[in-house]
Amino acid sequence: MKLKVVVPTTTPMHVDITVAEVARLQSETLQIDVEGLRYGTASIESAYDEALNLPNILEVCQRAEADGFDGLLIDCMGDPGVHAAREALRIPVAGPAQASMLYAASLAERFSVVTVIDNVKPLFHDLAKVYGYEDQVASVRVIDLPVLALVDLETMVERLIQQSVAAVTQDGAQAIILGCTGMLGVADRIAAAVCEQTGASIPVIDPVPATIAYLISLVTLRLSQSKRAYPPPPPKERNMLELLQAQRPG
Amino acid sequence: MKLKVVVPTTTPMHVDITVAEVARLQSETLQIDVEGLRYGTASIESAYDEALNLPNILEVCQRAEADGFDGLLIDCMGDPGVHAAREALRIPVAGPAQASMLYAASLAERFSVVTVIDNVKPLFHDLAKVYGYEDQVASVRVIDLPVLALVDLETMVERLIQQSVAAVTQDGAQAIILGCTGMLGVADRIAAAVCEQTGASIPVIDPVPATIAYLISLVTLRLSQSKRAYPPPPPKERNMLELLQAQRPG
Amino acid sequence: MKLKVVVPTTTPMHVDITVAEVARLQSETLQIDVEGLRYGTASIESAYDEALNLPNILEVCQRAEADGFDGLLIDCMGDPGVHAAREALRIPVAGPAQASMLYAASLAERFSVVTVIDNVKPLFHDLAKVYGYEDQVASVRVIDLPVLALVDLETMVERLIQQSVAAVTQDGAQAIILGCTGMLGVADRIAAAVCEQTGASIPVIDPVPATIAYLISLVTLRLSQSKRAYPPPPPKERNMLELLQAQRPG
Amino acid sequence: MKLKVVVPTTTPMHVDITVAEVARLQSETLQIDVEGLRYGTASIESAYDEALNLPNILEVCQRAEADGFDGLLIDCMGDPGVHAAREALRIPVAGPAQASMLYAASLAERFSVVTVIDNVKPLFHDLAKVYGYEDQVASVRVIDLPVLALVDLETMVERLIQQSVAAVTQDGAQAIILGCTGMLGVADRIAAAVCEQTGASIPVIDPVPATIAYLISLVTLRLSQSKRAYPPPPPKERNMLELLQAQRPG
Amino acid sequence: MKLKVVVPTTTPMHVDITVAEVARLQSETLQIDVEGLRYGTASIESAYDEALNLPNILEVCQRAEADGFDGLLIDCMGDPGVHAAREALRIPVAGPAQASMLYAASLAERFSVVTVIDNVKPLFHDLAKVYGYEDQVASVRVIDLPVLALVDLETMVERLIQQSVAAVTQDGAQAIILGCTGMLGVADRIAAAVCEQTGASIPVIDPVPATIAYLISLVTLRLSQSKRAYPPPPPKERNMLELLQAQRPG
Amino acid sequence: MKLKVVVPTTTPMHVDITVAEVARLQSETLQIDVEGLRYGTASIESAYDEALNLPNILEVCQRAEADGFDGLLIDCMGDPGVHAAREALRIPVAGPAQASMLYAASLAERFSVVTVIDNVKPLFHDLAKVYGYEDQVASVRVIDLPVLALVDLETMVERLIQQSVAAVTQDGAQAIILGCTGMLGVADRIAAAVCEQTGASIPVIDPVPATIAYLISLVTLRLSQSKRAYPPPPPKERNMLELLQAQRPG
Repeated sequence: MKLKVVVPTTTPMHVDITVAEVARLQSETLQIDVEGLRYGTASIESAYDEALNLPNILEVCQRAEADGFDGLLIDCMGDPGVHAAREALRIPVAGPAQASMLYAASLAERFSVVTVIDNVKPLFHDLAKVYGYEDQVASVRVIDLPVLALVDLETMVERLIQQSVAAVTQDGAQAIILGCTGMLGVADRIAAAVCEQTGASIPVIDPVPATIAYLISLVTLRLSQSKRAYPPPPPKERNMLELLQAQRPG
Repeated sequence: MKLKVVVPTTTPMHVDITVAEVARLQSETLQIDVEGLRYGTASIESAYDEALNLPNILEVCQRAEADGFDGLLIDCMGDPGVHAAREALRIPVAGPAQASMLYAASLAERFSVVTVIDNVKPLFHDLAKVYGYEDQVASVRVIDLPVLALVDLETMVERLIQQSVAAVTQDGAQAIILGCTGMLGVADRIAAAVCEQTGASIPVIDPVPATIAYLISLVTLRLSQSKRAYPPPPPKERNMLELLQAQRPG
Repeated sequence: MKLKVVVPTTTPMHVDITVAEVARLQSETLQIDVEGLRYGTASIESAYDEALNLPNILEVCQRAEADGFDGLLIDCMGDPGVHAAREALRIPVAGPAQASMLYAASLAERFSVVTVIDNVKPLFHDLAKVYGYEDQVASVRVIDLPVLALVDLETMVERLIQQSVAAVTQDGAQAIILGCTGMLGVADRIAAAVCEQTGASIPVIDPVPATIAYLISLVTLRLSQSKRAYPPPPPKERNMLELLQAQRPG
Repeated sequence: MKLKVVVPTTTPMHVDITVAEVARLQSETLQIDVEGLRYGTASIESAYDEALNLPNILEVCQRAEADGFDGLLIDCMGDPGVHAAREALRIPVAGPAQASMLYAASLAERFSVVTVIDNVKPLFHDLAKVYGYEDQVASVRVIDLPVLALVDLETMVERLIQQSVAAVTQDGAQAIILGCTGMLGVADRIAAAVCEQTGASIPVIDPVPATIAYLISLVTLRLSQSKRAYPPPPPKERNMLELLQAQRPG
Repeated sequence: MKLKVVVPTTTPMHVDITVAEVARLQSETLQIDVEGLRYGTASIESAYDEALNLPNILEVCQRAEADGFDGLLIDCMGDPGVHAAREALRIPVAGPAQASMLYAASLAERFSVVTVIDNVKPLFHDLAKVYGYEDQVASVRVIDLPVLALVDLETMVERLIQQSVAAVTQDGAQAIILGCTGMLGVADRIAAAVCEQTGASIPVIDPVPATIAYLISLVTLRLSQSKRAYPPPPPKERNMLELLQAQRPG
Repeated sequence: MKLKVVVPTTTPMHVDITVAEVARLQSETLQIDVEGLRYGTASIESAYDEALNLPNILEVCQRAEADGFDGLLIDCMGDPGVHAAREALRIPVAGPAQASMLYAASLAERFSVVTVIDNVKPLFHDLAKVYGYEDQVASVRVIDLPVLALVDLETMVERLIQQSVAAVTQDGAQAIILGCTGMLGVADRIAAAVCEQTGASIPVIDPVPATIAYLISLVTLRLSQSKRAYPPPPPKERNMLELLQAQRPG
């Protein structure tokens, strides 16, 4: 199985971190490829940022299908471009927000998202509405660290624990979603701390591995997005794609 | 009052038709400017098309605010870029889907959207969910004419009447939204035919004038989008904007 | 354009204040007439009060249509008689609760209503349910001043600011509706104070001007309530109207 | 136990029919008193009619409490004045729409209302929303007979059967509410016919006996409406009550 | 009228207490029989406990119908077996959670359940969802006393008052449901204390008498569960019933 | 990885068929064990049947955890005992209804369930409500074949295709869930036929493989049910378990 992870920003370090992370998941039968953007924004923290990255995301997605990948995930909790890519592609396209909510909602009745900054809170509420998980959202909490500051691991972990515990004890959360794909490899520490401080073991969802596991299950089941829900776009002139292709090196 | 209408496609004829349409609405105290895109797609009939148009839409919107416009509408029923532009701008930004649904939902308990082709049906259901009008949607019906074929006025009107009557009698619609901003200047004919065929006078919303009327009321009331709902995007590198600006002539 | 404002109480001062307020909105092309009740209650702070005012409200509304008015608003946040008047009249009938919620819900995802006393809180929740804005209500808060005490302007403004700030910081409100049509002409002061104390500019809706702006947009668009949603009442004996007409002077 | 049935119209025959109907329910320990209106409308088939009857309904209700009745029901499927009377009274106030929906919703997952004419359909949808039974409404169907024509018993029964069967087979109804308090004493015939034609025994709710049974259970349990949900109206001038009292015969 | 109360546990004391309680409700025309289980669990505080009691509950229910009872209630707030028994029986089957919610929801807009321990909270939320009262649940609170400790009456009452007052003042509850059928005979004391401490009279529902009152009203109205909602189970081999019958003494 | 499939009926053939089906999914690293019940019913087609099987289901589940299985699924579309087993067990417990709805809802906006007989329709609506997928259910359709008749493969496939096509074209379904775990190994044929007859490729979910894939992803991610949502049952006397254990052969 050959999966593509699209890192939807122009920050090369995001690609490097993701390559390191998915390395642990690769095996003889599972190849995971990671690719970033050439044109867009350094990170996504608003609908505005998301909008500026979409054309290049779609260009990468379409190339991935042409290159024979079996499935694809767009590696950002806003699920940027997932809807559009599901229209344009036949292979399954997954987004970490939907995949994480799906696991959280199936293992608990109410979950909280703990994310980076206030600006992205409306995005999660909108996504929960569109995906149908609105009633299960106990809260969206923030650790008040912008995406590009997540490299300070200890501060991030400390604040994630603090907000996750507050989500459980104050908001009634029964599961936690780490609300940024840059919060990599820390879910187990959060889960252990929440269990210790609240007395109950609850799922803490790490979005990237969760989305890959979901995608693997889709490919295994030979399932993909419904073409009734995501009909293929009819042909027409689309010069934005040409503009992007013209920028690709040689 | 100085309003900007952003036509979010690369088809010059869309700008021309809109200029003609809004000419009727201008007055000594109301100036309406129309501008199209340089990079994007010829029309918007899918989330995929919408995604490819967003960067240029936002570039036009930001220039409009800088140029002193009092309000702005993005002239497409998918409300493409409205959320992102509301983040980036202080002046009120309106989308025809939201404005039309708002009028329909306030004058009736259930409304139907009659739009172009099957592909855009999910878009309307998603928008209705995000805007909170989901329970009031009686149905989304199509006339099976792609956007670029709406120039055949008589076929369009005939099918709009047929689908609007069906929405009323079969789906329980009590108001109709014309679901494409290219269905200009025909609302009165549809309303008269629906009244004649169903025996009751119901609102038929023509999205462009409705959105302009809504926008005028916002500017008059000195109201704009909530910065709690649409927080300003923090500064960062966004090279997609540079790419677009680099393409602007001299 | 000729609009009627029906003040649905028997307190002459309410008419006087409203006349003064709408005077600012009149122009060469816009005439706004204000009329109060002869039989009802001194103010409306319960469903009980509302019920006692309805017959006279409807009598005034029907006379307004007969007298050639283009549109009509019933000037009380309970929207008393709006549903009934929409059945009986062909001209557009607006209520300040619906019009205010419509603006708040279109500019923010969640709004709070700040109103007079505890008794009217259920009314707002019921109206939000009927109008379909229930999920967007962050809270209904009160300033604990009965309607007839709103003449103490400074106390009112101080408490409105205090409750509006609490709505934003504690309840997640992103917009505020002033929940009594007697809270006239103070929206800008509330908005400035909320922005200063919470750091974000949000819409503060003053219901009377908002409803007039909405009504003007309806008349301009030649839209009125759906006769499928508000069918005309069939003829029958209605001696309550005769009783009221019998009390009218000469 | 002493119960009052308020017939909220000015048609004396409505009182006579109801007196005959409730006679069957009286016993040594249960006295049921019936009273109609002096001022209002001949029947209620719209929000407009309802509005014109409210003041006299409330006047009768307040007198009933003063006269020592233990509970009270307002005998019309629009539940006119129930909310207002619950504010003004301490004794339990019941409405046939709420009581009928409560029985239907507790014995089935989806129910239909079969009522008189199209005009009252929105009323039932609004009531279902306010009472929280909206999701259980399979449909609201009409027999196309105005209230004042219900005296033609055989036509009424025939159409009730026809619409009830259609509600079950086409709309998925699992219970039927007879949607007018004038459809007295025919529930058993409808139930038998529906069972015969659809093969399943389902509840057919006759609103008047259902509401009396509900009211008896409240009085027995010493339960009444919550004063948090229905707070007592504060004192003030209410000259509409004086107008009505002035019309009462010596 | 002959009603059966099924006590769905294996604790003989539960039967004894219930016999004492219902004794007060019996009369010449009302006989109430109480029966417990031979196989199951000592109390029900989880879905797990409920599951283990279901077969014996159903065995008792089917015998009750065969023995000529007119109606039946399963005396536990989880309504264990109510859905299954409604399929198997023609006589009306009531559950105290549904009956209590029905009274609370009809007398208030929002209610809280005050129950025993944290474990049963999800059960109430699930039941509220299935019965359609989810939006009216203000909160589910616990007194942190396991079912088998409810014999300490004063501690129970004290904590019930404390949590009921908190439900009203902090969660917006307008009515209280005592969330365990073992909280017998204390509703009036709770109601008086809540009224004194919060200043408003609100309904406090004692589930056993409320369910019996509801059941009496059903039998009086000759209403039972819809066979469209609860279709009779087709015949097949069911050896669990045989296993239970084999254990019955001679 | 070692998974247990609990076949929750007493029909040995159900175990045999399932053993054959899961054989295809086993591998060097994946062992799947299948076990049926000794006491219960021959099949599950009602809440009544489900109730009679629960004690033995739980007994098998608890033994599976004690025997070191990594995860467990209860192989029936009613998800019988899933909630209770999630309380009693620490290893992840999956139900095919929830797992199938989760895949369908994530790949489409609206799905239909095509199941065996009318009796089980309410079960699916209740499950969809409890799992939060209610708004995505386009319809529940039946092929009118009882579970024990599913051995007639060709009739089953023919009717599944017919109802699936109807779900797509008449009810707006965008994905299909085969609504009985006895409909094994036919999903691809249904999908191909639906695509041919409706012109669009949509997911057709085969519940058993889908649930196993979901369970594998949980075990891989080291995720299990939230102990806040499914708290462990406190110890107490539970003689139903003893009764079942006493029947186990030596």
